Amino acid sequence: MSIQLMTSGRPMQQLHPDDVIWHHARLATLNPANPEPYGMLENVALIVRGEKILALIPETDVPANHVNQVDLEGRLVTPGLIDCHTHLVFGGDRAAEWEQRLNGVSYQTISAQGGGINATVAATRESSAETLLALAQQRLQRLMQEGVTTLEIKSGYGLNHEAEAKMLRVAQHLAQSHAVEISPTLLAAHAVPAEYRHDPDAYLTLVCEQIMPALWAQRLFEAVDVFCENVGFTPTQTERVFQAASALGIPVKGHVEQLSNLGGAALVSRYKGLSADHIEYLDDAGVAAMAQNGTVAVLLPGAFYFLQERQRPPVAQLRKQGVPMAVATDYNPGTSPFASLHLAMNMACVQFGLTPEEAWAGVTRHAAQALGRGATHGQLAAGFVADFIVWDAERPVEMVYEPGRNPLYQRVFRGKIT
Amino acid sequence: MSIQLMTSGRPMQQLHPDDVIWHHARLATLNPANPEPYGMLENVALIVRGEKILALIPETDVPANHVNQVDLEGRLVTPGLIDCHTHLVFGGDRAAEWEQRLNGVSYQTISAQGGGINATVAATRESSAETLLALAQQRLQRLMQEGVTTLEIKSGYGLNHEAEAKMLRVAQHLAQSHAVEISPTLLAAHAVPAEYRHDPDAYLTLVCEQIMPALWAQRLFEAVDVFCENVGFTPTQTERVFQAASALGIPVKGHVEQLSNLGGAALVSRYKGLSADHIEYLDDAGVAAMAQNGTVAVLLPGAFYFLQERQRPPVAQLRKQGVPMAVATDYNPGTSPFASLHLAMNMACVQFGLTPEEAWAGVTRHAAQALGRGATHGQLAAGFVADFIVWDAERPVEMVYEPGRNPLYQRVFRGKIT
Ligand SMILES: [Zn+2]
Ligand SMILES: [Zn+2]
Repeated sequence: MSIQLMTSGRPMQQLHPDDVIWHHARLATLNPANPEPYGMLENVALIVRGEKILALIPETDVPANHVNQVDLEGRLVTPGLIDCHTHLVFGGDRAAEWEQRLNGVSYQTISAQGGGINATVAATRESSAETLLALAQQRLQRLMQEGVTTLEIKSGYGLNHEAEAKMLRVAQHLAQSHAVEISPTLLAAHAVPAEYRHDPDAYLTLVCEQIMPALWAQRLFEAVDVFCENVGFTPTQTERVFQAASALGIPVKGHVEQLSNLGGAALVSRYKGLSADHIEYLDDAGVAAMAQNGTVAVLLPGAFYFLQERQRPPVAQLRKQGVPMAVATDYNPGTSPFASLHLAMNMACVQFGLTPEEAWAGVTRHAAQALGRGATHGQLAAGFVADFIVWDAERPVEMVYEPGRNPLYQRVFRGKIT
Repeated sequence: MSIQLMTSGRPMQQLHPDDVIWHHARLATLNPANPEPYGMLENVALIVRGEKILALIPETDVPANHVNQVDLEGRLVTPGLIDCHTHLVFGGDRAAEWEQRLNGVSYQTISAQGGGINATVAATRESSAETLLALAQQRLQRLMQEGVTTLEIKSGYGLNHEAEAKMLRVAQHLAQSHAVEISPTLLAAHAVPAEYRHDPDAYLTLVCEQIMPALWAQRLFEAVDVFCENVGFTPTQTERVFQAASALGIPVKGHVEQLSNLGGAALVSRYKGLSADHIEYLDDAGVAAMAQNGTVAVLLPGAFYFLQERQRPPVAQLRKQGVPMAVATDYNPGTSPFASLHLAMNMACVQFGLTPEEAWAGVTRHAAQALGRGATHGQLAAGFVADFIVWDAERPVEMVYEPGRNPLYQRVFRGKIT
């Protein structure tokens, strides 16, 4: 075997017998270097060596005598989907509370019953790791069935050292036991736990001085998130968490500008944050700060829908300033109980006016960037991980237009059909 | 075997050896005679004889020695779901057109390209019955997987004698080849076909004098529908179709008050119509007319979502006047490409403020009424068809709160697991 592989005109190394050639596909590479919409390449074969994409070569250059070949029979191939914002691990159930609200029970009454996020915190603290794992597994499987190969999972329903660690260990276990990559995030600053309600700053001291350094030392997460909002933490409190994270070299991100404009996105950007998420109330200054610092805009249309919000994120401005837009499920029991990234793509187009191509970039290339994986994930390109999906579909728009149809044919994670 | 079965205190006939006792379930009967929410009955067994429910008896009265028993292990049972408004049969695909619109291509340009409903009409006319069947089958299977046991299918993309007949024969074939009941509707008055665009009344003459009587004689449909709207047919034209239908003894229904208030619902009601569908712009007079004539309000939240409408149907007024509200997918390629009745229930609650119990009544008891099957379908009660779903769920709200989770455990159609 001595064929010279070419990519972009550069001669490459020779083919090994174990390399797998996936050919006769239409590749939506999502690589912006390919000028067609979706970075579409026709008549190109994908060569996988081990867990990575080795090269894309012209179909005509595929050596006929190579043993490890897969004929995709003209099917569509995209990068594996990436859900860059989820709260997948939690205990309990908020369906009954939602039903009460729709039956006219007031938020005050539900809150007095211990409902809302407090209910999830209580249930998460009480649940064993095994129970949390079993629940999260079901949710994860739904995402994986739609083609998700990488996802973020936040803590934030433990709100004490032990329970935050428990959540992150469940996320770690999910990654070890499934054909999926997980990016865990510490969101200890999600809410003030009841036992600190008269002294939120004391809780943040616990977060910054104990929980964060201890769990970071155990490599249980890779970024720190804060819920910066009138009903969450102030910008000052948020910055305190960001400073503590930065001192440890931990990347930051934020739930910002969801219900009001506190300048949270600009704050995240100032700390070179990975992403500013929600951002319905983001203003022009915030957009400019994000553009300048390479912070990704993570749009969460499921929550917008479930809460029937009116204020839409400034998509036109984000586009104009070249801020990469990701789309995620925000899967969580209180405001976005939809474990479907296809539905999130649909909602981003229907509600926010994204094009289907932007929605696809939002769950591949830009979602990868939001997780600090922009150079290795979310594109079909040489050197990227061999995570891709083979679809019984003509065009990428189909999964966006008609969520629930799910024409997934094969799911490939690290080069292996799973 | 000589046990006396009791329902509501009345002694009933004896049990046959072939009768099946489904026991140890929690039954959401959706029977309004049972006062608990969802008509819930605990500790009651369901006895099925052939294709019908024979009786509900106390669990304690279940004869231990009866052979045909199914232990449901405490699972939730509901009536089979009924989707009372769909356009499931059509050719072609409108995903690409939707993508064009999101990329800023104007409605005029798309229309000039032959897009919009004309594209679907052209594709439906060109498609063979086999092709239409194969496409519709995939859509039907998604509905069936969610627990749908009865659905309505409209014609309306043929718009000539031959193609309308072809669509209705495909619906008939679907019913014959699947464990599902189909209620076919003639919607020849869906739009004016291009060849009649200068003389819509001549098209209606064709519909009323040829298509309708001929296809009715062949028993290819069981109700007549009209799209009464500024962009459809006028109330006068609609009434002409209703008169022709009534003269043949055919029940009517209407797509009314979706984009404007033309008094279509009152018109449907005057003809004792089965249902008035969409009704975002329905006024108080329309509600009163529907209440007086027993016309069901069919809410179609998928189209409301997909078109990002602002005007909501008058749910509070419908409730107050006791108009039964059904919820349906309106599955169609132009305005509601969602083959999920669970998602439609969710959208009815989130967007229109229905309670989950109202959404459930909307896909069972009230949907049955909208299809003229109120006395036989949509409830777990003696004498009703034995169409029911066994769920791995605690409460009916779960399927509404979290569409996509689909905890369907068993689907029973006419007494048989399918
Ligand atoms: Zn979130
Ligand atoms: Zn319709």
